Amino acid sequence: MIVAMQESAPEEQIQRVIEHLVKMGFSVHRTTGVRQTVLAGVGPRSDFDVRDVEVLAGVEQVHRISAPYKLAGRSFRPQGTVVAFANGVKIGAEEIVVMAGPCSVESREQLFTVAEQVAKAGARALRGGAFKPRTSPYSFQGLGLEALKLLREAGDRFGLLVISEVMEISQIEPMLPYVDILQVGARNMQNFNLLRELGKVRKPVLVKRGIAATLEELLLSAEYIMAGGNYELILCERGIRTFETYTRNTLDISAIPIIHKLSHLPMASDPSHGTGRRDKVAPMARASVAAGADALLIEVHHDPDKALSDGAQSLYPEQFSELMAQLRMIAPAVGRRMV
Amino acid sequence: MIVAMQESAPEEQIQRVIEHLVKMGFSVHRTTGVRQTVLAGVGPRSDFDVRDVEVLAGVEQVHRISAPYKLAGRSFRPQGTVVAFANGVKIGAEEIVVMAGPCSVESREQLFTVAEQVAKAGARALRGGAFKPRTSPYSFQGLGLEALKLLREAGDRFGLLVISEVMEISQIEPMLPYVDILQVGARNMQNFNLLRELGKVRKPVLVKRGIAATLEELLLSAEYIMAGGNYELILCERGIRTFETYTRNTLDISAIPIIHKLSHLPMASDPSHGTGRRDKVAPMARASVAAGADALLIEVHHDPDKALSDGAQSLYPEQFSELMAQLRMIAPAVGRRMV
Amino acid sequence: MIVAMQESAPEEQIQRVIEHLVKMGFSVHRTTGVRQTVLAGVGPRSDFDVRDVEVLAGVEQVHRISAPYKLAGRSFRPQGTVVAFANGVKIGAEEIVVMAGPCSVESREQLFTVAEQVAKAGARALRGGAFKPRTSPYSFQGLGLEALKLLREAGDRFGLLVISEVMEISQIEPMLPYVDILQVGARNMQNFNLLRELGKVRKPVLVKRGIAATLEELLLSAEYIMAGGNYELILCERGIRTFETYTRNTLDISAIPIIHKLSHLPMASDPSHGTGRRDKVAPMARASVAAGADALLIEVHHDPDKALSDGAQSLYPEQFSELMAQLRMIAPAVGRRMV
Amino acid sequence: MIVAMQESAPEEQIQRVIEHLVKMGFSVHRTTGVRQTVLAGVGPRSDFDVRDVEVLAGVEQVHRISAPYKLAGRSFRPQGTVVAFANGVKIGAEEIVVMAGPCSVESREQLFTVAEQVAKAGARALRGGAFKPRTSPYSFQGLGLEALKLLREAGDRFGLLVISEVMEISQIEPMLPYVDILQVGARNMQNFNLLRELGKVRKPVLVKRGIAATLEELLLSAEYIMAGGNYELILCERGIRTFETYTRNTLDISAIPIIHKLSHLPMASDPSHGTGRRDKVAPMARASVAAGADALLIEVHHDPDKALSDGAQSLYPEQFSELMAQLRMIAPAVGRRMV
Repeated sequence: MIVAMQESAPEEQIQRVIEHLVKMGFSVHRTTGVRQTVLAGVGPRSDFDVRDVEVLAGVEQVHRISAPYKLAGRSFRPQGTVVAFANGVKIGAEEIVVMAGPCSVESREQLFTVAEQVAKAGARALRGGAFKPRTSPYSFQGLGLEALKLLREAGDRFGLLVISEVMEISQIEPMLPYVDILQVGARNMQNFNLLRELGKVRKPVLVKRGIAATLEELLLSAEYIMAGGNYELILCERGIRTFETYTRNTLDISAIPIIHKLSHLPMASDPSHGTGRRDKVAPMARASVAAGADALLIEVHHDPDKALSDGAQSLYPEQFSELMAQLRMIAPAVGRRMV
Repeated sequence: MIVAMQESAPEEQIQRVIEHLVKMGFSVHRTTGVRQTVLAGVGPRSDFDVRDVEVLAGVEQVHRISAPYKLAGRSFRPQGTVVAFANGVKIGAEEIVVMAGPCSVESREQLFTVAEQVAKAGARALRGGAFKPRTSPYSFQGLGLEALKLLREAGDRFGLLVISEVMEISQIEPMLPYVDILQVGARNMQNFNLLRELGKVRKPVLVKRGIAATLEELLLSAEYIMAGGNYELILCERGIRTFETYTRNTLDISAIPIIHKLSHLPMASDPSHGTGRRDKVAPMARASVAAGADALLIEVHHDPDKALSDGAQSLYPEQFSELMAQLRMIAPAVGRRMV
Repeated sequence: MIVAMQESAPEEQIQRVIEHLVKMGFSVHRTTGVRQTVLAGVGPRSDFDVRDVEVLAGVEQVHRISAPYKLAGRSFRPQGTVVAFANGVKIGAEEIVVMAGPCSVESREQLFTVAEQVAKAGARALRGGAFKPRTSPYSFQGLGLEALKLLREAGDRFGLLVISEVMEISQIEPMLPYVDILQVGARNMQNFNLLRELGKVRKPVLVKRGIAATLEELLLSAEYIMAGGNYELILCERGIRTFETYTRNTLDISAIPIIHKLSHLPMASDPSHGTGRRDKVAPMARASVAAGADALLIEVHHDPDKALSDGAQSLYPEQFSELMAQLRMIAPAVGRRMV
Repeated sequence: MIVAMQESAPEEQIQRVIEHLVKMGFSVHRTTGVRQTVLAGVGPRSDFDVRDVEVLAGVEQVHRISAPYKLAGRSFRPQGTVVAFANGVKIGAEEIVVMAGPCSVESREQLFTVAEQVAKAGARALRGGAFKPRTSPYSFQGLGLEALKLLREAGDRFGLLVISEVMEISQIEPMLPYVDILQVGARNMQNFNLLRELGKVRKPVLVKRGIAATLEELLLSAEYIMAGGNYELILCERGIRTFETYTRNTLDISAIPIIHKLSHLPMASDPSHGTGRRDKVAPMARASVAAGADALLIEVHHDPDKALSDGAQSLYPEQFSELMAQLRMIAPAVGRRMV
């Protein structure tokens, strides 16, 4: 921690800040310049609140030097994390992995139709929501356990991994037999009790960035899970809220290279939720791959007009196939490949 | 719903949109102008996704006319909601109600010291966190049930109502005997499962606006709870995330008069979380009252430097007393009063 | 400047960063900890770009310690700046100064009618636009020089100072004989050529914060003008752009106490542009005064429905009088007064 | 324009709104539903302020139906605009055009070195700043006219078009003999006087999106120029301001497909200003091309460590060549090509 004192700060205030830092467990180095005094606090702790020092008399600015996360930081595993699955698929390796499927599992027929089509087009995992608490209390809320069984069955039939969202601690246990990846949605990115429980699980977790979360906060959420011993994580950009209202959210493509610099974890992108509009999904999926994404999450529905949720952002199967062909052309430009 | 077609949209596309609207349950009025065709869909449903129409061929824009909430809207109770408590305190009436106390309940001694001081200064409710899942996995996590008992005891001793945050469905039941108001934090504003359960409770709930939530979304969260039959709600502004980084969040004071226009529910303000810095709490508390807030939530600690959480934004008891004196001067300017 | 090196940074990279800092004119203090090396660069320059160091190999983070502004900083004049006018009015002193008038000067009759009414209600300055380049190329563009003459005449008649916006360097000279305060609009806050010319003028300037400008950037714009020798400045909050769309902008009330802490310059608030809606002007004006604003800019029109610009945010004269009465009640709560 | 009345609005208020609309020049269609009355105003005007109706008594919501721009809208030229130059280069056609060069022109040697290298790598235009008013009043301010002459000479020598930024009306005339494209910077996107003058010029103009500008506002700025008769425009995304602070700005890649849908104008991307960091330029340039950008603006410097401005975001020439090779691989995936 670096503490810059105000120009006018008297010696007495400087001493009080030094004492405070020492009490917090830091050893303090002092540099006195022409204009001001700067204190550097060096120590083992990372769980402090810089504001506790900011509000002391005579303090101008405080900067945290060490990142507040450790396990999620690039230096913990400089070579990068590869999340590997039993069927040979790897996220974070050379192949770009596409996870596709409907927003919600609506019926056996719907799911199997979509699963077959996305598998044929080259997807490696099947996505589908089982629990769908919606913004409006009057909307469809998901098939629950039945959906999970259908996902597993369809995944096995068409050789696809299964990913689905977990929304509460009580859902973890029932989901484990059916899914290969537990997804944490944007709204739960800072549901710390849920994250803590997921740290005890031995199954990969994909964490989506909250719509108002900084990348540092996303990494701190990853840290929460990793602190419990679960290192099989994938992060995912899905759009942030900005002043522009034409799209639902602004998909922050630059998050992809930034996470790759700050962390060793694989980074996915979700252009469906990131844009909220079918006609913007393909350009943003291509952009994500061109920027280095390790995986994509894409909503596909065989009959989006009748979809019970998010039909407007679901691709038609033929649009998905066409997109996959484009992605295959882009992958080599970034040293990657797709099946 | 209003659908504006593109200038160039052929009759065939217009017909397809009309059919779609009719299938969604709307009756359709058509206006054909020199430049374009506009369709007005009139009907009883409010749980539709405008994007389903936006993505149809030939559509330029779609506007939702009726608000997506009903029970939370001003017209449901034009005279305004007053949340009344057994001890005679009312939120939403003439008196401005101040709820104060420490961020976390840390010990009996701490809580009773602070409670006595805020009661003496004119607070009407005691706030204090029992469950504190923190951004960092390495920080203090709260005293739990023990904290709730202490809150109740201190509240009774000093004649204060008790408000504390509920973070999970499983906490509702154990909290009911101890608190007068259940608080939903900003991160849980869209935890719809939790909201649904709170709709079944017969106890007032205070809902904080999420840091990236629009006011419409805040009202939709209120709708969730009200749809369950619990109409005793208070809403609360506590800062939104903007590009300005000097404060943690930007306390959106204009949310106060806007909610008063759109809704009948009382509107509170939390200048402690809204600014994150002790020296900004008093000006923003005064501004909230001047803008018409019905209640304030303020963090006070008798020894903020030793607080286990958020000490930097907690007022010293003497600062709180001074602030209360200022608020008492401002209240009459907006036709309100304080004890 | 503080440079934190990456944990893994080899000595060779550290040396290269030290050399770079020395070349930039800094003397360098080195602290080597268990985890990483931290370099502190101390020197007289403030016109550097921290990114030049950020991109060097092995660098983790760079923090600027000294503020990039000096003349605008609180320590330059700890007692605060008071901008005093010939008629005895002072901005930044005990009295809160209200500047009111129409958005645009439309006619002699309109201006004199409004001027008389705002003077009677207690305003101290008359505002009115002479040059109105509008968002749409098809709208009213202002009366120009004629408007300035009318403003001066009305100001003299009713004992009001005159403030009007300058939009281009070429307008400064013609405006000088007619106005008491030159206003720089939000869109010109970073028009550095204009700011430089205003530094040469010996007349007070009011600078409005840009809708996407941080407070540091606002102070840097003030620095630009002060660097030319003109120290008679007033800053003004008028709303920032956020994701919330109910109001045009989000009036950032917290900017008022923050500027008072960081700078010695008086801070005004413009609730008319800050909200864009008549019914939100009064609550936000009251909130601004309660938060410590030194001055207010308020749009008033005797017939807003016929106003040629911004009628929707203009108060009726009787609303303005009522607001002034409320402000008079609030002022003493913050140790201020109004006539 | 669509006006939704409040549920409770009495007939008298509805009549007053209808009268107001008629006075504004609209013919009014009325739909009375179970819940509320909706009025549709149809007419030739597009230069109205919806807020004038929003503030009338009894009005719940107002929606503008027709876009506030006409000439810039897609329907004005459904086939798209191609900006063609004398040397055969076309922006908006099949070829993706890369414009590269230093942030500022610093010297003959610097400019010619960089120009030769970017031409060799496949750039089609040379960019370079002549006038550089900087955020800090203490920084390098550009070579002015001398820079323009050097740009022309270097452009001619290496077969490159020349693009440079115009910051004031007085610079237009002197720039015309030297540049092929006049660039309007983000800060001047709403400098309407400048835009109006550029409408009279017969030379292509590239307009950058302001950091807080919506896409609708960008199109309205284009409308300003086109209203003067200059239809040779290129738009450019260069990053918007969001809460994320890791990068200077958030490059909004989705702006590219959105502008292509809303407008016929070519859309460029500037990943250098959009990220502010050299190591993020290549991924974001690739993402822009993958999302359909017609052109790129990229800063390249032969010795960025010594650059007088923005060195941190300038690519080394070898990085630029490598990037061009990657872009050449991506272009065919979107049906485009590069030389």
